[in-house]
Amino acid sequence: MIVLVINAGSSSLKFQLYNMENEAVLAKGKVERIGMDSAILTYEPEGKQDIREVREILEHTTAIRRVLDMLAHPEFGVLKSVRDIQAVGHRVVHGGESFSSSVLVDDRVKQEIKRLFDLAPLHNPAHMLGIQAVETNMPGVPQAVVFDTAFHQTMPSAAYLYPIPMVLYKKHKIRRYGFHGTSHAYVSERAAAYLGRPIEELKLVTCHIGNGASCAAVLHGKSVDTSMGMTPLEGLMMGTRSGDIDPAIVPFAMSKEELTLSEVNSMLNKHSGLMAISGISSDMREVTQAMQDGDKNAALAFEMYEYRLRKCIGAYAAAMNGIDAIVFTAGVGENSAALRAAVCRNLTFLGLRLDEEANARRSQEDRMISTADSRVQVLVVPTNEELVIARDTYELILHSNPVQ
Amino acid sequence: MIVLVINAGSSSLKFQLYNMENEAVLAKGKVERIGMDSAILTYEPEGKQDIREVREILEHTTAIRRVLDMLAHPEFGVLKSVRDIQAVGHRVVHGGESFSSSVLVDDRVKQEIKRLFDLAPLHNPAHMLGIQAVETNMPGVPQAVVFDTAFHQTMPSAAYLYPIPMVLYKKHKIRRYGFHGTSHAYVSERAAAYLGRPIEELKLVTCHIGNGASCAAVLHGKSVDTSMGMTPLEGLMMGTRSGDIDPAIVPFAMSKEELTLSEVNSMLNKHSGLMAISGISSDMREVTQAMQDGDKNAALAFEMYEYRLRKCIGAYAAAMNGIDAIVFTAGVGENSAALRAAVCRNLTFLGLRLDEEANARRSQEDRMISTADSRVQVLVVPTNEELVIARDTYELILHSNPVQ
Repeated sequence: MIVLVINAGSSSLKFQLYNMENEAVLAKGKVERIGMDSAILTYEPEGKQDIREVREILEHTTAIRRVLDMLAHPEFGVLKSVRDIQAVGHRVVHGGESFSSSVLVDDRVKQEIKRLFDLAPLHNPAHMLGIQAVETNMPGVPQAVVFDTAFHQTMPSAAYLYPIPMVLYKKHKIRRYGFHGTSHAYVSERAAAYLGRPIEELKLVTCHIGNGASCAAVLHGKSVDTSMGMTPLEGLMMGTRSGDIDPAIVPFAMSKEELTLSEVNSMLNKHSGLMAISGISSDMREVTQAMQDGDKNAALAFEMYEYRLRKCIGAYAAAMNGIDAIVFTAGVGENSAALRAAVCRNLTFLGLRLDEEANARRSQEDRMISTADSRVQVLVVPTNEELVIARDTYELILHSNPVQ
Repeated sequence: MIVLVINAGSSSLKFQLYNMENEAVLAKGKVERIGMDSAILTYEPEGKQDIREVREILEHTTAIRRVLDMLAHPEFGVLKSVRDIQAVGHRVVHGGESFSSSVLVDDRVKQEIKRLFDLAPLHNPAHMLGIQAVETNMPGVPQAVVFDTAFHQTMPSAAYLYPIPMVLYKKHKIRRYGFHGTSHAYVSERAAAYLGRPIEELKLVTCHIGNGASCAAVLHGKSVDTSMGMTPLEGLMMGTRSGDIDPAIVPFAMSKEELTLSEVNSMLNKHSGLMAISGISSDMREVTQAMQDGDKNAALAFEMYEYRLRKCIGAYAAAMNGIDAIVFTAGVGENSAALRAAVCRNLTFLGLRLDEEANARRSQEDRMISTADSRVQVLVVPTNEELVIARDTYELILHSNPVQ
């Protein structure tokens, strides 16, 4: 079965095409600057030359059409016909309380995703554009949606409720949802497999550390807590997001700086984090480089970032009464040996012993970076959210009853 | 030396009179509802009958005068003359970055406390009223101020800065200050003394759990982190305060419920926490009773409260790379065996073993509630902020140069 995976943003669209017989990626790419007369299509077919083209693409429907044209192009394509694509899987950021697993798209599902626009105003409307663009271009092809929030729906109420008036939960659904669920679920399973132990016996802390970053406490295979909350702002310090702050800072800063609601949101989401403290970059690679070159603000930014991550791991050790393994994933988690080392060197009280040499080694494989005698295992597991979306889509199609 | 300790609020004033020769409390009491024609004075002289009187008290100057009248009253008093009081010590909530220890009051200090009105608009102006009322009633008597924030001024910048634009720190002094410092300092020292170990060798987590609640990571006698932040809203779930929430909830709730800045502050400070979740009370005693009587919301409130406290202890274990002892203090911390048990039973991964019997025993003494073989000691240490204020005031007077 050929499955197309789509991650639609408001002005961008990423795609990967999978052959599910062997889970091979046949092609991948992205369309950026949708809505502009100089949108950019990047197309990377397996075994052929990459293509980059700049052209007018004013809406998602056009973007999808252009992607399909490429995939089935006589010269650059990887398919004989667009009709070879048997299913499409979409990443959807917010599934609210309605979705605790991936589902096939139907009218009820679309209605529900729309109802959640309010909770994810930047993401869900864009995903809906992606779903509709596929409907237009590929009528009759079944689609599935895979939610960033779904894995965390197993959290107990004591972890997902906030200690604020209950009416805010009942009326506006203000609660912790958590994000990056697809990634936390994937690396948890990989970690259990790597350790050769049933996931039902393990206490894991998974650290998805990319430009956005979150930790999850995964107890016996189920998410019982996670650092992102109602929105992806809460929790860890990130590239441009503050993470946790005194909530009283919000009204205080609004008053002092005469900020609107949208300005304060933008400040905390786009102009905070590593960027704000280092004054250099939101990219951990650049911050680390500047720190190594002696920049004090970069060193402070790195220290705060590491410190807040380490505290979260300690909090989840207390949440689960212990940890068997810590799993690092995503851009920073997979690649920053400096960050992993700083975190692990200060967790020796858990019986954790870092294998400094293994930590420093670069690899694209799942690997252990703790010593053989470490009481807490530390793993690096490259994440692959697209593969999970392809798999979930494939499974849903296999097990769905054909439409009568 | 006789020292009067004053804790002035906007409409209340608490006092304790100490004989510093033996640190005996000669009298204590409070004036409530200052500004009303039915203010209430409660006066408890040592060894004499308590007195409660209702009368018009329109300002702090009158309140202090009435307290002094009582203290030197021929029949109910404990002093021959008001002139026996040689110094007055005030609790001041916010010392900003200016004060890392207690100081004698002079014009510069008063100016500085006023400059901090902005950061503690509910507290510092009231403390200033108290200082001025003493000046009016007791001209020439030296006064000292003891700050809730001072003990936490040893935090490193990585702990006290927020990952938000640096201009907010530089321009508006938005940073973590922490509160309850007098209590965290006091119980840290008591704990070290109880354990018979130099505080310079200890890693302590002190939990000041009252109606307001905060934890501190006390490394080698110095505060290196604490859960309250720029304001006393951040951190743990409290009686009526939310503690940590997704900062994005603030603008979201403001928009959905059309709240003003002052309304959202009030919601998070006065209508959240135990009160909001239990729907019953902000008082842990009542919530625990309701839980034991089978109330589900009370059970949820208790669980959230305990869970958030436990995660903070875990975070500070990670912050200091281990813990030697956990210290519980203040109303809830000293008296709720149920809370302490719930926290400690889920921290066995630290090697902590609770002595259930010792935990259940009621006492006003410093005591150990962990077993002899526990790797982390757990102590209950009744706090005494008034005594610290009296001591600091006494020491400052002793060591100050007499006015020429």
